[in-house]
Amino acid sequence: MPPFDVPEGDPFGPHNLPYGVFSLNSSPDGSSGSSSGGPADGAGRRSVGVRLGNHVLDAGAAAVELGSPYAALLARPTLNPLLAAGRTAWSDVRRALTAWVTVPAHRETVAPLMHPLSDVTLHLPFEVADYVDFYASENHARNVGQIFRPDAEDSLTPNWKHLPIGYHGRSGTVVVSGTDVVRPSGQRKAPADPAPVFGPSVRLDIEAEVGFVVGTPSPMGTPVPLGDFRDHVFGLCLLNDWSARDLQAWEYVPLGPFLGKSFATSVSAWITPLDALEDARVAPPGRTHPLLPYLDDTSEDAAQDPGGYDLRISVAVNGHVVSEPPFSTMYWTAAQQLAHMTVNGASLRTGDLYGSGTVSGASRGELGSLLELTWNGRDALELPSGKRTFLEDGDVVTLTAWAPGPHGTRVGLGEVTGRITPGA
Amino acid sequence: MPPFDVPEGDPFGPHNLPYGVFSLNSSPDGSSGSSSGGPADGAGRRSVGVRLGNHVLDAGAAAVELGSPYAALLARPTLNPLLAAGRTAWSDVRRALTAWVTVPAHRETVAPLMHPLSDVTLHLPFEVADYVDFYASENHARNVGQIFRPDAEDSLTPNWKHLPIGYHGRSGTVVVSGTDVVRPSGQRKAPADPAPVFGPSVRLDIEAEVGFVVGTPSPMGTPVPLGDFRDHVFGLCLLNDWSARDLQAWEYVPLGPFLGKSFATSVSAWITPLDALEDARVAPPGRTHPLLPYLDDTSEDAAQDPGGYDLRISVAVNGHVVSEPPFSTMYWTAAQQLAHMTVNGASLRTGDLYGSGTVSGASRGELGSLLELTWNGRDALELPSGKRTFLEDGDVVTLTAWAPGPHGTRVGLGEVTGRITPGA
Repeated sequence: MPPFDVPEGDPFGPHNLPYGVFSLNSSPDGSSGSSSGGPADGAGRRSVGVRLGNHVLDAGAAAVELGSPYAALLARPTLNPLLAAGRTAWSDVRRALTAWVTVPAHRETVAPLMHPLSDVTLHLPFEVADYVDFYASENHARNVGQIFRPDAEDSLTPNWKHLPIGYHGRSGTVVVSGTDVVRPSGQRKAPADPAPVFGPSVRLDIEAEVGFVVGTPSPMGTPVPLGDFRDHVFGLCLLNDWSARDLQAWEYVPLGPFLGKSFATSVSAWITPLDALEDARVAPPGRTHPLLPYLDDTSEDAAQDPGGYDLRISVAVNGHVVSEPPFSTMYWTAAQQLAHMTVNGASLRTGDLYGSGTVSGASRGELGSLLELTWNGRDALELPSGKRTFLEDGDVVTLTAWAPGPHGTRVGLGEVTGRITPGA
Repeated sequence: MPPFDVPEGDPFGPHNLPYGVFSLNSSPDGSSGSSSGGPADGAGRRSVGVRLGNHVLDAGAAAVELGSPYAALLARPTLNPLLAAGRTAWSDVRRALTAWVTVPAHRETVAPLMHPLSDVTLHLPFEVADYVDFYASENHARNVGQIFRPDAEDSLTPNWKHLPIGYHGRSGTVVVSGTDVVRPSGQRKAPADPAPVFGPSVRLDIEAEVGFVVGTPSPMGTPVPLGDFRDHVFGLCLLNDWSARDLQAWEYVPLGPFLGKSFATSVSAWITPLDALEDARVAPPGRTHPLLPYLDDTSEDAAQDPGGYDLRISVAVNGHVVSEPPFSTMYWTAAQQLAHMTVNGASLRTGDLYGSGTVSGASRGELGSLLELTWNGRDALELPSGKRTFLEDGDVVTLTAWAPGPHGTRVGLGEVTGRITPGA
């Protein structure tokens, strides 16, 4: 059955249906949605939206009009109620939405609730509870080790192959795609400098990552086993873990990154449900070290339920693609990260977000940070917009991605983009 | 004017008035407050309470009965609306509360709204937004450096005297005093072990800290200067940063503590407003290194507005005092920590919580962790309940504290206590 108004093969066809939160830039009669009378800024009513091609279906309004029992989950200003509803509800809602956008009988009801993307403002789609960031690409970890610890015997720290290394980040500065990023100021000190100096970061970088969004919570004291990943994680998004390398280098020993990361983390406006990514599931790289049972995904059971995802990411600076990091190369899977994060009894909350860590493939064209792409600033990139080691004010960084979908289709992930503005 | 039913000199007299959130264990007619009919567990209606002696004033009900304009801030199940109301409102509400518990004309109204502490359940008093933990005691940092990096030239890392080192923790596992702490499991590996082993932590420790609670938010991109501390921070509490030293030691290089800390952080049920601690303000220790301007509290202006607090903490294990850490010895102040945390443009949210870091004085009787008290398990403590290096199942740890108040009084801080239960 043909979907409504989406060309064959569109990566945002009815096989995808990612979720976001939107508001109309102006009300249907053409007046501004903002009560201030200023420029359209999406200050109108927020609702859960579902993307179909270049349109957004007002899923909340559709649920109400169609008398759906899911109106209580969809006619809301955030995805959190849907996230909290659990896996069975996620499947049921997805099935209902698929019918709404494909069954001709619904067309008359649904068509007026489809808004062009250009007419809406997209908002941070969920309230972020805790934000954790991992470090799960072996290529990335080895590159960083070689750059920062050139004299070390092994570029990986001794724990790296035994556990997915992670740390908590600042959930209050997670922002939606399109939000400007103010260049952070802070302390930096080159080894030869007598004392630290203060000023805007001069080594502002990106990290191309995938973010996982927790729906179903878990109680304190009860670890979530590897096999329960799909019961807790609703979906994924693209994530840019902006990083001020100079601030980070001076501050991070012994307690880890702090101000070098906490100024901003950008996520895509669309959360792709894991149910849309069944055809993208792949086995992770072979494990070179035996894993403790709570992380072991090499058993037959686990191997039949692979934890990797084949996501093809693209990193563009000022519209020019500089890298295509392959997510399938990640050593640690999102399921292992969830099992590790909770094995000490830490609870999960609806809205918890965790980043995969920078995605870097084996080749130069697959690296997920400028730190690696320029080898810590040694080899500048030649872009149409000029030479770059790290980011300059005005630069726009955009991550996009797609995954294999059913029957040879592609599943598009929402882009995450941000522009650097000068610091104070 | 005599306060209602509080002995002269009580550390929770009307000069203190800390805030919490409580519910009655049973309704006034004697039936259980819990709709399940089970044992009284504080499942009844939550309201903001103010402690006076060994009683809790139902501040929400008092505000309603007295027709106070602050009912909208106090007749609430969490402190967040009061926190968000800002400094002027904090002072006004405190002035009103002081009148309600001291002016005889209010006695008839207020007395029935005073509940014995034994009749109420105290809850986590605010919704924690981001949680950050610092490392601000020079004694503690030097002790830890000597224990973990005995071969280092200096026990402090090179950045320590230039910035208050901190990291983000897990806000979802911040729990109120009295909550049991399940012993965490995880990976540990002694240097001589061939591979990590998994199991319950065998080096479970405490960290005696003070927590600061942010009320007034700040926008992204705008640092909060040193002098604006009192405009943003509402008050403080005691905080126990439970730490699994064996998990932490194996995981923390290079990205800092994660599972070794994220299983639980306990805070006292009472938040002491900074306005109650005017007489406890002291200058921090002399600065041995010049500070960058955004952290410099040695100017004449800053010196007249000292950033330290003279809080006398006491750490008891199974009722036996093992240490009395003096908060006045902290090198970095809470004002400096706030200025540092936001200097990169990171925003603040109502409910942000930040810990001072372990409080350790210069002498053995003033150390804020078992790691230091037993020198990493080398010198066991002889307690009435037996020898201890680290915590055993069933152990109860309680932090209490007081500060100098007006006219020779003491201002009591709410205790933070927790019992270790066996892991799964």
